[in-house]
Amino acid sequence: MTQPLRLGIAGLGTVGTGVVKIIRQQAALLTKRTGRSIQISAVSARSRAKDRGVSLSDYGWEDDPVALATRDDVDVFVELMGGAEGSAKAATEAALAAGKDVVTANKAMLAMHGQALAELAESKNANIRYEAAVAGGIPIIKALTEGLAANEISRVMGVMNGTCNYILTRMEATGQGYNVLFDECAKLGYLEADPNLDVGGIDAAHKLALLSSIAFGTKVDFAGIEIEGIQRVTLDDITHAADMGYRIKLLGVAQKTGRGLEQRMMPCLVPAQSPLGVLEGGTNMVVVEGHAVEQVVLRGPGAGEGPTASAVMGDICDIARGLRLPVFGQPAATLEAAPVAQSVLPAPYYLRMALTDKPGALAKVASALGDAGISIDRMRQREHDGDVATVIIVTHKTARPALDEAMTSMDSTGVVQENPVAIRIEAL
Amino acid sequence: MTQPLRLGIAGLGTVGTGVVKIIRQQAALLTKRTGRSIQISAVSARSRAKDRGVSLSDYGWEDDPVALATRDDVDVFVELMGGAEGSAKAATEAALAAGKDVVTANKAMLAMHGQALAELAESKNANIRYEAAVAGGIPIIKALTEGLAANEISRVMGVMNGTCNYILTRMEATGQGYNVLFDECAKLGYLEADPNLDVGGIDAAHKLALLSSIAFGTKVDFAGIEIEGIQRVTLDDITHAADMGYRIKLLGVAQKTGRGLEQRMMPCLVPAQSPLGVLEGGTNMVVVEGHAVEQVVLRGPGAGEGPTASAVMGDICDIARGLRLPVFGQPAATLEAAPVAQSVLPAPYYLRMALTDKPGALAKVASALGDAGISIDRMRQREHDGDVATVIIVTHKTARPALDEAMTSMDSTGVVQENPVAIRIEAL
Repeated sequence: MTQPLRLGIAGLGTVGTGVVKIIRQQAALLTKRTGRSIQISAVSARSRAKDRGVSLSDYGWEDDPVALATRDDVDVFVELMGGAEGSAKAATEAALAAGKDVVTANKAMLAMHGQALAELAESKNANIRYEAAVAGGIPIIKALTEGLAANEISRVMGVMNGTCNYILTRMEATGQGYNVLFDECAKLGYLEADPNLDVGGIDAAHKLALLSSIAFGTKVDFAGIEIEGIQRVTLDDITHAADMGYRIKLLGVAQKTGRGLEQRMMPCLVPAQSPLGVLEGGTNMVVVEGHAVEQVVLRGPGAGEGPTASAVMGDICDIARGLRLPVFGQPAATLEAAPVAQSVLPAPYYLRMALTDKPGALAKVASALGDAGISIDRMRQREHDGDVATVIIVTHKTARPALDEAMTSMDSTGVVQENPVAIRIEAL
Repeated sequence: MTQPLRLGIAGLGTVGTGVVKIIRQQAALLTKRTGRSIQISAVSARSRAKDRGVSLSDYGWEDDPVALATRDDVDVFVELMGGAEGSAKAATEAALAAGKDVVTANKAMLAMHGQALAELAESKNANIRYEAAVAGGIPIIKALTEGLAANEISRVMGVMNGTCNYILTRMEATGQGYNVLFDECAKLGYLEADPNLDVGGIDAAHKLALLSSIAFGTKVDFAGIEIEGIQRVTLDDITHAADMGYRIKLLGVAQKTGRGLEQRMMPCLVPAQSPLGVLEGGTNMVVVEGHAVEQVVLRGPGAGEGPTASAVMGDICDIARGLRLPVFGQPAATLEAAPVAQSVLPAPYYLRMALTDKPGALAKVASALGDAGISIDRMRQREHDGDVATVIIVTHKTARPALDEAMTSMDSTGVVQENPVAIRIEAL
């Protein structure tokens, strides 16, 4: 293992530049720790001329990432272009077909094509490593695939989009509404080119799909995730939730149920003092529950040059050290296609509704819930606005279909002014 | 890699029994994930007859752990006996000498003999894996050695003794004193046979010594750790700290300084709302700060059958999958002997003192601090007890020698009734 490990890096944005910097600046450390010299043979990016604050003159250049991926002097293709399709996928496939290992931060590509790419990689005895694809600098893929490998996992959950968490925690801290903070994020450059990837929960759901596959030995199933973004979370809900000891997080949850795999990415209430509840700003957190380990929580920066490059480099070091693993922790051919189970497991819910302020209105709501078999844990009537009173209800555990039934029957009472809001409360 | 991996397990206490259970009950999962069958060839323990709730009849038996460690049908010697010397060390050395890999949970043995054992292992091309030795179920050794391998680590710290954290958080929650909770822990079986290993900070310091070595590429140096237990933490200090927004934790900190490696395990104040501050009961937490990743926090159960067995099994799975690493993340021969640096880096301090309640008393204390170049961030005078007033001071950052100088000069003013208490405040 004294031969150098030779990289071809495609994509020199924030993360790619960060990777080049670490390789240049920490060369001695990397060699000491991996026993090999880690070298860059060539790079590829959209613009060759752009000043990235780091010299590329020592490296070859390829305009075409596919050409880079298949160079003879490239042992590992480092894909940091992003995008589920197009060049990223073509170059990844080319590298794997040539039997080269791939390190990528591309959650979208793996969420959409993970199974096919894993099969291709394993047929060529090649690795795909993707620590940077999930939760930035947090070594969660490694923890789940390796450290916790002897656990039957019961649940994986996490806050995995820093922008959403930033918006939600800033709404609470500043009392500003969603739109104001969305605009602030746009100005700060916290949003993807398509902001719906962030605020619509898509990006976080891509990450959840990868964690699910490892945790449960199932084929990556992005389409099976129930996704709801944070666009409809109001300051009112954040405030009411806080009053009752909760915070609202865009929370991804994956768990095995008797009916299949339940995967959801949606706003949830979590206890304010829980590890997830205290999470501020752009920080990410992943919680893993296993039969032996009980609960392990990992927390760290979810994005940024340094943290993401740290994760990419962790994968590169693993390859340099000779670690070889199936892409999703077990051979791709053994991954199961689990049935999609949505909202199977009961949970308590937070309900907010605007009620006509008349005698008997609350009783009608209470009996709609009671008729559906839902009992009330806590209820608070808040400010009146003319003839309308805001009522907040926290239910005991209920199945989602029963709740939907109750909401429909509430609607028909004529005392509920607008569509009630229902947000799941996730126990920790 | 289709041959079974054959284990010899020495020590069938809580952890050993937990390992046997996982191997028996999760055989299919383990094979799917590692590509091999994981089998137990033989075991060894003090009593063969004891009912451990798990059948041992399928396995060979050795009274002598050294004989177990060197059996031809043992690929991996799993050392779960504990103790820095004696059988554990003899059997570990015998296994390594025979070129067998070792998985151990033995922090004391590695803290005292880590360098020699690593050299022996590497000379025989054998592995020593010890995830379970530090922070129970948390995969921190893996995160630090592998996931964060490209980081120049600046600081590692953590709460790594669940019993101490249990005592400290219960003192705050119940208002009971240290002695009452010590007795409670004794009854609950939370204490080591020698309780000073727990409450004296020794056990946690063993763990810190291992993390330091990996983080900084230094030879394990347990003797270089400044250790202070929790025996002198009073309910008063916990209460005063809470009033000022802090909690007291038995915190291990290791950091590289200009003068060498600073390692300490001692009660510290941390911000009550920080990840370390909110940590309750027996839960452990490790914080790693690296040049690229910024800060990563791992949290999980620090002890117990399931979590510790999970960590042991993670190591066994790694070996089954063919992962081979130097014991402390780089070849033992390249580990440096770093000079011991104690309290080099300045920090704010919490001071509690009993002052004679006379005009000018506080001024004398303030000028003792000022003369030593220490400025006061916050000061509170608390309850009087006859002629004595309790004064709490939070200083700005100061070097420990300056503080010691100030304490000495306070002592000579004659207004300080007893030895002032000084506790470091660790920033997060």
